[in-house]
Amino acid sequence: MAQATRIEHDLIGDKEVPVGAYYGVHTVRAVENFTITGSTIAQFPELIAALAAVKQAATRANRDLGLLPPGIAGAIIDACEEIRAGRLIEEFVVDPVQGGAGTSTNMNANEVIANRALEILGHPRGHYDVIHPLDHVNLGQSTNDVYPTAVRLALVASLRRLGDSLGALATAFTEKAAEFSDVLKMGRTQLQDAVPMTLGQEFSTYAVMIEEDRLRLTEAAALLLESNLGGTAIGTGINGHPDYAELACAYLADISGEGVRPAGDFIEATQDCGAFVQLSGVLKRVAVKLSKTCNDLRLTSSGPTAGLGEINLPPVQAGSSIMPGKVNPVIPEVVNQVAFEVIGNDLTVTMAAEAGQLQLNAFEPVIAYSLLRSLAHLRAACDTLATRCVPGITANREHLHDSVHRSVGLVTALTPHIGYAASTALARQALATGRPVKDLAAEAGLLSTDQLDTILRAENLTGHSARPSAAAAP
Amino acid sequence: MAQATRIEHDLIGDKEVPVGAYYGVHTVRAVENFTITGSTIAQFPELIAALAAVKQAATRANRDLGLLPPGIAGAIIDACEEIRAGRLIEEFVVDPVQGGAGTSTNMNANEVIANRALEILGHPRGHYDVIHPLDHVNLGQSTNDVYPTAVRLALVASLRRLGDSLGALATAFTEKAAEFSDVLKMGRTQLQDAVPMTLGQEFSTYAVMIEEDRLRLTEAAALLLESNLGGTAIGTGINGHPDYAELACAYLADISGEGVRPAGDFIEATQDCGAFVQLSGVLKRVAVKLSKTCNDLRLTSSGPTAGLGEINLPPVQAGSSIMPGKVNPVIPEVVNQVAFEVIGNDLTVTMAAEAGQLQLNAFEPVIAYSLLRSLAHLRAACDTLATRCVPGITANREHLHDSVHRSVGLVTALTPHIGYAASTALARQALATGRPVKDLAAEAGLLSTDQLDTILRAENLTGHSARPSAAAAP
Amino acid sequence: MAQATRIEHDLIGDKEVPVGAYYGVHTVRAVENFTITGSTIAQFPELIAALAAVKQAATRANRDLGLLPPGIAGAIIDACEEIRAGRLIEEFVVDPVQGGAGTSTNMNANEVIANRALEILGHPRGHYDVIHPLDHVNLGQSTNDVYPTAVRLALVASLRRLGDSLGALATAFTEKAAEFSDVLKMGRTQLQDAVPMTLGQEFSTYAVMIEEDRLRLTEAAALLLESNLGGTAIGTGINGHPDYAELACAYLADISGEGVRPAGDFIEATQDCGAFVQLSGVLKRVAVKLSKTCNDLRLTSSGPTAGLGEINLPPVQAGSSIMPGKVNPVIPEVVNQVAFEVIGNDLTVTMAAEAGQLQLNAFEPVIAYSLLRSLAHLRAACDTLATRCVPGITANREHLHDSVHRSVGLVTALTPHIGYAASTALARQALATGRPVKDLAAEAGLLSTDQLDTILRAENLTGHSARPSAAAAP
Amino acid sequence: MAQATRIEHDLIGDKEVPVGAYYGVHTVRAVENFTITGSTIAQFPELIAALAAVKQAATRANRDLGLLPPGIAGAIIDACEEIRAGRLIEEFVVDPVQGGAGTSTNMNANEVIANRALEILGHPRGHYDVIHPLDHVNLGQSTNDVYPTAVRLALVASLRRLGDSLGALATAFTEKAAEFSDVLKMGRTQLQDAVPMTLGQEFSTYAVMIEEDRLRLTEAAALLLESNLGGTAIGTGINGHPDYAELACAYLADISGEGVRPAGDFIEATQDCGAFVQLSGVLKRVAVKLSKTCNDLRLTSSGPTAGLGEINLPPVQAGSSIMPGKVNPVIPEVVNQVAFEVIGNDLTVTMAAEAGQLQLNAFEPVIAYSLLRSLAHLRAACDTLATRCVPGITANREHLHDSVHRSVGLVTALTPHIGYAASTALARQALATGRPVKDLAAEAGLLSTDQLDTILRAENLTGHSARPSAAAAP
Repeated sequence: MAQATRIEHDLIGDKEVPVGAYYGVHTVRAVENFTITGSTIAQFPELIAALAAVKQAATRANRDLGLLPPGIAGAIIDACEEIRAGRLIEEFVVDPVQGGAGTSTNMNANEVIANRALEILGHPRGHYDVIHPLDHVNLGQSTNDVYPTAVRLALVASLRRLGDSLGALATAFTEKAAEFSDVLKMGRTQLQDAVPMTLGQEFSTYAVMIEEDRLRLTEAAALLLESNLGGTAIGTGINGHPDYAELACAYLADISGEGVRPAGDFIEATQDCGAFVQLSGVLKRVAVKLSKTCNDLRLTSSGPTAGLGEINLPPVQAGSSIMPGKVNPVIPEVVNQVAFEVIGNDLTVTMAAEAGQLQLNAFEPVIAYSLLRSLAHLRAACDTLATRCVPGITANREHLHDSVHRSVGLVTALTPHIGYAASTALARQALATGRPVKDLAAEAGLLSTDQLDTILRAENLTGHSARPSAAAAP
Repeated sequence: MAQATRIEHDLIGDKEVPVGAYYGVHTVRAVENFTITGSTIAQFPELIAALAAVKQAATRANRDLGLLPPGIAGAIIDACEEIRAGRLIEEFVVDPVQGGAGTSTNMNANEVIANRALEILGHPRGHYDVIHPLDHVNLGQSTNDVYPTAVRLALVASLRRLGDSLGALATAFTEKAAEFSDVLKMGRTQLQDAVPMTLGQEFSTYAVMIEEDRLRLTEAAALLLESNLGGTAIGTGINGHPDYAELACAYLADISGEGVRPAGDFIEATQDCGAFVQLSGVLKRVAVKLSKTCNDLRLTSSGPTAGLGEINLPPVQAGSSIMPGKVNPVIPEVVNQVAFEVIGNDLTVTMAAEAGQLQLNAFEPVIAYSLLRSLAHLRAACDTLATRCVPGITANREHLHDSVHRSVGLVTALTPHIGYAASTALARQALATGRPVKDLAAEAGLLSTDQLDTILRAENLTGHSARPSAAAAP
Repeated sequence: MAQATRIEHDLIGDKEVPVGAYYGVHTVRAVENFTITGSTIAQFPELIAALAAVKQAATRANRDLGLLPPGIAGAIIDACEEIRAGRLIEEFVVDPVQGGAGTSTNMNANEVIANRALEILGHPRGHYDVIHPLDHVNLGQSTNDVYPTAVRLALVASLRRLGDSLGALATAFTEKAAEFSDVLKMGRTQLQDAVPMTLGQEFSTYAVMIEEDRLRLTEAAALLLESNLGGTAIGTGINGHPDYAELACAYLADISGEGVRPAGDFIEATQDCGAFVQLSGVLKRVAVKLSKTCNDLRLTSSGPTAGLGEINLPPVQAGSSIMPGKVNPVIPEVVNQVAFEVIGNDLTVTMAAEAGQLQLNAFEPVIAYSLLRSLAHLRAACDTLATRCVPGITANREHLHDSVHRSVGLVTALTPHIGYAASTALARQALATGRPVKDLAAEAGLLSTDQLDTILRAENLTGHSARPSAAAAP
Repeated sequence: MAQATRIEHDLIGDKEVPVGAYYGVHTVRAVENFTITGSTIAQFPELIAALAAVKQAATRANRDLGLLPPGIAGAIIDACEEIRAGRLIEEFVVDPVQGGAGTSTNMNANEVIANRALEILGHPRGHYDVIHPLDHVNLGQSTNDVYPTAVRLALVASLRRLGDSLGALATAFTEKAAEFSDVLKMGRTQLQDAVPMTLGQEFSTYAVMIEEDRLRLTEAAALLLESNLGGTAIGTGINGHPDYAELACAYLADISGEGVRPAGDFIEATQDCGAFVQLSGVLKRVAVKLSKTCNDLRLTSSGPTAGLGEINLPPVQAGSSIMPGKVNPVIPEVVNQVAFEVIGNDLTVTMAAEAGQLQLNAFEPVIAYSLLRSLAHLRAACDTLATRCVPGITANREHLHDSVHRSVGLVTALTPHIGYAASTALARQALATGRPVKDLAAEAGLLSTDQLDTILRAENLTGHSARPSAAAAP
């Protein structure tokens, strides 16, 4: 049996729309035109909420300026409130990867809001003579100012959540750093034994890196909060009320709770993707650091017998169908892969940004798609790492202790006392015999046992790396 | 009310599994560990079918070698057949982006097949003493040979479909080329007027490029069809029957209908991602060409009045909520964006391939994820372009005709007859006056009207670019 | 005849060094080991100067702390001063792409400074018992703190120069914007005619974008000015004097005139490449915007007869050997190519940063190489564009004026007065007949000629895009 | 004192050229316009030779077709021969990164050849009425067919040399594989102990990978050998003699010794960069594999005491200025960095290829620049690795032997004999006690000592990975 439909029309002609759908003809055409990813924009709740917030702010401004009757404005505002609360999300059915610079996403929002507002006022769907998706919901707006503004707001919301997840991950590393603060180990440069440090210092470094990335994220958010709302088609504000931009932007800041403010130059802001490229660069930076951290975790937990064997990651699943008892570093591995994905997404964003022409970048949909996915996947990766891996890490203290005392690298600490030449000779002897530097130095009478004890005491070897302003470092 | 469960266990301990689930404990753990993308491997039906094909081939080989009782083997084979036919796909619930080098995907397949085979034999799920996911379904196998083999097979299947879509797109362009074979236009280099050509030649070029890419895809498929099946853990074939590799591979070729063959060196083949990088490079090439083609379509259809206005793309949806009557090139725009995505995915593949260590690349899941998505999205993009855009393209013949005859570029054709110096002078005069080169040349008595007519006849200007072996060019 | 040599030795053994060379054994070995690019670090004068500045600061600190005799310290400082002034640059002969995390670059500097200091004191080269490259010049230092600090300083110096070049380019665009402030043209979105704007607005946008990028560069510089000097081998400061870090850093700030300050955590700072990735991301952003700008310049200057023909770029060389009179947009084209190179370099930086392991990133040399080249090439590209292209751009005012008045896009401006439906009908009529919207609207009696004149007056169409805070936008 | 000059002129006007220069006015303008990289095309001798070969072939064809007098043709051909032999390379002074799609490089070649030909005939430089750079040297040609053809030929020449270097590197690894064929070690997956293999197998894998890459390079060369010579401006062959293309191409094949052949479709071939993208993808593949190999070398040589310590790389320079006796893996490190550079260059090539518009890609200069550098740097990296690192690698045989016999991974080999459950229990016991699996199994009476000796014999553990067709694998 055929699905019941209603007829709507646009400049192409008439079109059947499912009778129960809140969306309308423009959405149906977009669904037909763009079936790329097999998914819809509903996968990004932040984006749907941001679209509703922008529409709500615009409607409040239009109402204040006398451009919309209070009754209609009220119904639109109520519909937007519902959507921001998570309702009707399944009505957002267009593919996130779409032509048209976001027009289909904007149209989808206009139609859902109009039909829900109609419903609130007791009218059937499609009665656009009462509330029209374009003439009322989209009043004074263009996709070219609504869509990027909503995308920016969605990115900021998602970015705040990533910030929280990074914070939790940094805390997990900081707690481990405290637990491992007395565990001496060999530091390495270029994978070769260098000089001693503590395992706590190694873990603290991971936390410091992550905290620095959080600061960079916050800076990127500030750039995203500049909006071209009110610029309409190309930023000249054609057909817009002169007071609209300031008013709508102020309402949007109020609704979103974020410091949204008007861009300095609307023509520039309409075509510019600089803030997206900047955010993408910061996400790439986060990815690079996370990947490096996970590389280190996998490396130092290698073994159990033929690897470095310095730390143990908690087992979370069986590692192999053929090798009994094998446990693999699957959590860091998945984080690495998310990092690679984010770095790839950064390239997509870069190419899309470069391809913008004249007064608009037509490729913002794939920019939004890439960034929102990067943010969501990074967040999931951080959460997994923070909850399923870091807290359960244990140290092989004895093995680490031995590795320091067997290491030739200790000779570096003797250099200020016995000179570079004698140190080099001692290093060669230690390598050749496999005997500890300390014993050899004592036997040779280079230093007394007391002196050696003092020099080679852990706190003297490992210095004071942490400085007061650590969290604010770049 | 709580969901009914059964208890399974692994080296971590006991775990509840939904009583109706075909998957088991390993899958449940993987779902908990990896919640990255919000999607499952079921989004890639080619991968699920390929996994079942590999399991089916392995089981046939094990049966022939006397390693599996016929009854058990038969049930496993039947279960695999069903899955290859598309059943139980919703039981493949692990995230495609996962740690463990594909172990969770392999485990998911082992468990679903075992439980379905148990069901076929009349046993309840979880009775692994009868048919065991590892001891029977995974017999003689390792994730390290099963997973890459299945991924390669899935890629080839998806690549064949992309090849078909590219073929259809090339045909669409070829048909347009025939339709436009008599439409003279100005060719351009560096966006500056160069010399005349036909619009047919321009469209034919798009078809030739696409056909060349199809050849490159076919070459990439040949590399993917080398399998390390039988190499088990690291390619040494430990615990494997000496005849297993040849036998399983032959069965897999038979089941898949593709020329799967054993790799020359199993240790190399187990760790090497060269064929994935190669395919990714070819997909990037396809993306680059498609993007260039869509850039051209958008450029030559720019207007309607203030652009080049050479061709018209068929309108498929309204272009703007604020500008009445505006129609945008939304189909080429979405193809551009897919191209940018594919190029980004290539970087993800590159980074994942480079990060492989020692005897295995642990990051094959994100490689598979990226490539399968690139293939699917490219296919969708080609289909959209071939069906919703190219066939409806029309030419503004008169405008194109005028642009040639007004163009200073015609002077190039006179050079062999009147010399470079006279040509340059004529070009300057034409630019200054805006008058046709032909008229000026005739007035100046440089050439007779008859001579000019001959020289400037379309077929003399546009040459013979097509050569017999066009389709086989690189 | 063989070149005269002196003999030096290291842990590998004896080695001949050209007798006149200021460099020594470590440099000679590095030259043999790394012959990759066919060039030397001398191509980066900022890096040589920065190395000398770091050595000078360290020496001052060591002198103050009583670790170096004043005579030796004085000679080293004098040698550093000379090198900072540009002398001896040809003695820096190691390949910028080198293994060893910058050790060879550091060694090259140590040796040249030591031998020049020896010369200043009247000693022959190689008499390291008097002044030793390691014991004196490198005192209290490690490649792992010296090299990244010097690279950061060199990047900041190069970045300041790029900032100046961007400023000059922005000025060139701003001047053109003023010149074109009264030239009406059609704005375009998605390459389709949208609504009117001025050519001045278009050029002003380029200036605003560039100014925003300068702000981002300045932010990146702030991150680069955090130094790990004093962290020695891995950041624990082993073998370092407790007061050395603060003192050396203060001297470095004094010498360089930049706000160098100690990093918050030396262990983190020693291994972290975040500031490099951040700078690289900003350079990519600059490249993306410059490329987009040049794409626009090439597009709007396309023609002369079969293109958009809105502006003319000044001819700077003949365009073609076969087509008389052809002039090509060669300056924007070379800028595009530099942008592509910079974006590629960003990927190199990303991969190198991700590959860092444990307490050090061994791949800083290729990071430095990529960033210093990106900075230098971008600077050259901006200078070329600012001096050889932008100032000579002229507008085809009449053509632009006509294009607006023939454009269907004007109908948008009528919408608030005659409604969306009537506007759409008018647009269709204009497209079909090719007649101006204004005439059709007047004839149909939709609006009076006076009304139309007011609505379609340039200043009413093009709005007020510029806002006071433009220069501070993101 | 001012340099002596001669005056030449072009469409811009008069210009002074150094009196002794073989190049002329077009070159001088290009040098002024493009000062980007600080280098010249003379850094690519293959490109200069290829340009001369193309000019020589064209001149032969023109002579045969009666378009050039034999005397002039002879002088041009002699000049080309000299340049191919390496003379006058310092006269090629234009920057490789240039606007104009290679016009400046073509002009530079035309002018140097013309002036040298004039000299051969006894005329002074600049007497272009006798031999003209455009009318004679460039006769029947366009930059748009000459430049890409020369670039392709240069790439093939450079690629052949890289192939040789890869071959030598593969040989070095193969020799080490033979030397290490009896050294048992633990294989690892995901950095965790897996099952035994030989060090010879590990090194053989590196050789196999490299040989496969050589095959891919050869395939890429085949695509590059398709030429559009004769297509002139846009591939329509305007102004060209109908027999010219076949004739010139045949001569070029003869001169170059490579199988150059005419492309199937000249219009497509003139604008298509597919072969460049394909080559770039293959170079990226080579880079990925080399980087992975060097990662492995650095990892397995980590230590000396706190690392894996499986192999030792030969020391080639002192590792540290602060840590006596430290030796670092500097040769693999530089190879890694070249790999990162090549991967970055691939992105540059990709972006440049995507940016091509209509009948020509204006960005071929940066494509050529990137690819020629990637080829040269990869070659240098391979040579360094093959000569300064691989041959000197030694194995820590005893340590490797111990690591296998202490490893829990041996339990996998017992699984077929004692079952998965008993194996898992044994693995746990071994991990807990640190005692060898073999001893525990014997004590528990699970297998006899004889049985264990057989099962755990090296040749039984490590299987037969090499297969006859290894070298031909993908």
